Amino acid sequence: MKPIQVGLLGIGTVGSGTFQVLARNQAEIRRRAGRGIEITMVADLDTERARAIVGPEVQVVADGRAIVANPDIDIVIELIGGYGIAKTLVMEAIAAGKHVVTANKALLAVHGTEIFAAARAKGVMVGFEAAVAGGIPIIKALREGLTANRIEWIAGIINGTTNFILSEMRDKGLDFGVVLKEAQRLGYAEADPTFDIEGVDAAHKASIMSAIAFGTPVQFGQAHVEGITKLQAADIRYAEQLGYRIKLLGITKRRDDVGGIELRVHPTLVPAKRLIANVEGAMNAVVVQGDAVGTTLYYGKGAGSEPTASAVVADLVDITRLHTADADHRVPHLAFQPDATAATPILPISDVVTAFYLRLQVADQTGVLSRITTILAEHDISIDAVLQRESAEGEKQTDLIILTHDTVEGRMRAALAQMQALPTVLAPIVNIRKEELS
Amino acid sequence: MKPIQVGLLGIGTVGSGTFQVLARNQAEIRRRAGRGIEITMVADLDTERARAIVGPEVQVVADGRAIVANPDIDIVIELIGGYGIAKTLVMEAIAAGKHVVTANKALLAVHGTEIFAAARAKGVMVGFEAAVAGGIPIIKALREGLTANRIEWIAGIINGTTNFILSEMRDKGLDFGVVLKEAQRLGYAEADPTFDIEGVDAAHKASIMSAIAFGTPVQFGQAHVEGITKLQAADIRYAEQLGYRIKLLGITKRRDDVGGIELRVHPTLVPAKRLIANVEGAMNAVVVQGDAVGTTLYYGKGAGSEPTASAVVADLVDITRLHTADADHRVPHLAFQPDATAATPILPISDVVTAFYLRLQVADQTGVLSRITTILAEHDISIDAVLQRESAEGEKQTDLIILTHDTVEGRMRAALAQMQALPTVLAPIVNIRKEELS
Repeated sequence: MKPIQVGLLGIGTVGSGTFQVLARNQAEIRRRAGRGIEITMVADLDTERARAIVGPEVQVVADGRAIVANPDIDIVIELIGGYGIAKTLVMEAIAAGKHVVTANKALLAVHGTEIFAAARAKGVMVGFEAAVAGGIPIIKALREGLTANRIEWIAGIINGTTNFILSEMRDKGLDFGVVLKEAQRLGYAEADPTFDIEGVDAAHKASIMSAIAFGTPVQFGQAHVEGITKLQAADIRYAEQLGYRIKLLGITKRRDDVGGIELRVHPTLVPAKRLIANVEGAMNAVVVQGDAVGTTLYYGKGAGSEPTASAVVADLVDITRLHTADADHRVPHLAFQPDATAATPILPISDVVTAFYLRLQVADQTGVLSRITTILAEHDISIDAVLQRESAEGEKQTDLIILTHDTVEGRMRAALAQMQALPTVLAPIVNIRKEELS
Repeated sequence: MKPIQVGLLGIGTVGSGTFQVLARNQAEIRRRAGRGIEITMVADLDTERARAIVGPEVQVVADGRAIVANPDIDIVIELIGGYGIAKTLVMEAIAAGKHVVTANKALLAVHGTEIFAAARAKGVMVGFEAAVAGGIPIIKALREGLTANRIEWIAGIINGTTNFILSEMRDKGLDFGVVLKEAQRLGYAEADPTFDIEGVDAAHKASIMSAIAFGTPVQFGQAHVEGITKLQAADIRYAEQLGYRIKLLGITKRRDDVGGIELRVHPTLVPAKRLIANVEGAMNAVVVQGDAVGTTLYYGKGAGSEPTASAVVADLVDITRLHTADADHRVPHLAFQPDATAATPILPISDVVTAFYLRLQVADQTGVLSRITTILAEHDISIDAVLQRESAEGEKQTDLIILTHDTVEGRMRAALAQMQALPTVLAPIVNIRKEELS
């Protein structure tokens, strides 16, 4: 059987990795797919660099529209990134009846619902394994492997830049700003690291996983997003003392009690004995809780040329295998058949149920702890642990650390406002959410 | 669209779990598969128990052949176990043009090659996600998610009974026999635990994963299999001191240097900092090393009614989705298209490359360490670490612990024979393989 022809939009880091992996493992991939998979056309603004990578046999163009217009091409890989020309070309490829494979989490987070609807209407497939957690086949696990389950929640370390920074902060006891510079020097963080350190990248990916798990449209706009820029080395140390690690988690959770879904990204205390708490450096991991299977965890490289290419090629092989299948019976993009996508709302952050780590800088006086604990009790927030440091010689203030049990976030915000207003509370109260993930 | 009709052979632990999960999550499963999936017929020798589980609307029979003969049934689930009637019914179902889903690792390990060939010839699908690592979708990951990779090696904790026993031995410092009794009392080990504690169950599963990863027939008969019955609490303690945990691992590794595959199950020292070393109790985990993606790990419940049912139903949904697909383009059973299955041999254990932990009981004399290390050097085995305990008051013997670097097993066996023959070596030398898994 003739090889399936593929067009590649963008031959940067992931694009060149994809080209290399396909070339290197072509025999094995052909055996698995049942036919060859060939990139026959590449579009990149830098045509010289592209030519140097692909050699003389592949057609190189500067304009992606040439790929979309090519009737011999069945699958288009979009590796340009961003929402601009990437969206235009993806929509045009779909309109031209071509399948699409993309690594573009930002595009899918913001325009995914529209893109999947267009693909469905046209009867073409969209693969996006590479958009979430690099080479870890998490989309396939959620969409197919765990299909028997009602997903209860997902929690993931899905941004390698921030996980690397947090690992270094813990290992070396350094503050965020210092470690960020080192991460940039080593190539783990971009020159403009905003999307990573502010949690936006993690939120893109969490929104996609949420849609697949719960059969909803992609609702990135409703996600609650906090990054790691405000984390202090002192809190990482206290958390450790109490038996926790701090990770930037993307969390999505079904809340049947209020008929909604939690979708949030923020620094989170996690018990040190959980497997996910021990995921270090730039590695990613996603925990999924299903009602039949219980806890499953998926771990691997979340980024990088060849790990991401591994996911792109997995999608190519899937699409190639299913290419002859009846359009209605292909694996539906978001794991649910189109008519079955529920309009379950994302809950406002004040409605989420979570636990808290609090660090208060308090005047070293009698009655302070009593005042604080009374406020918490009045807001129906129960306390898990308290750590009170002795004030140093001559110091008139001390750190008071409190771990709470699960509570509704709105109640904690109200309690925090009252505690902050006390004259004995001398600095902004550090508050970090805590999840037992059991 | 009409629901797809399924027949269930055996409604024991996994069978009843499958029935319950399908019933409980039927709306979600129908949305995902595009049509309903209904168990319409159940065969079990205990028809009364079956009737009590399935209620009045499902046909209950004592003989599985009635299911195979039913023209309305498209998929047969085999949950009987063993090689006898299970094999007969599976082969008859395939001959009748029905797809098969099974959890039977023993059947596939011993007869898999024959079963897959029959299915291929008939153009039907065989799903076996439930046969390896319970609810963890590892077969799907190997067969589809990692399809872009040349798999380099796989190492898995794939037997919950033995992992539970090893966790207890470590936590409580007890010997194997004591912990086995407790495991049986708690239901983590069977009355006849042989298949589990002797590593046979793990070897069944490792053989299946090996075939998928390397595109070979299932070669269980060539696997090297050792269980945990000889492990002593003292070695678990020494390993811990040296920074290792001991796990029963199923390992399969590509050996291009000698044109073969390693396939072995045995207790293994693993660095404590590896994620897999921290998998405790009855949980399972599989590490896969691919040339593009690098290291990935999959973790979850390896057994149990609903976890295993989760895998059975995932296969049902996959088959349902692909039911209309052209037979040539379905996901091939063993991940490789049939004509492409290589005849790569399983290496004899003497050819495997691995490292060792040795514990020698030696006379407390000068020159003992020198003699031992000389023998190792003569066999070209290099030493990673040595731990020599001071002999206790009045004792004339002491423990000598050695960790080696990787070596060819055959050389270690020769060296061990020489060391064992020394008059200063006072007891059989404990030797346990060690893998860095990096």
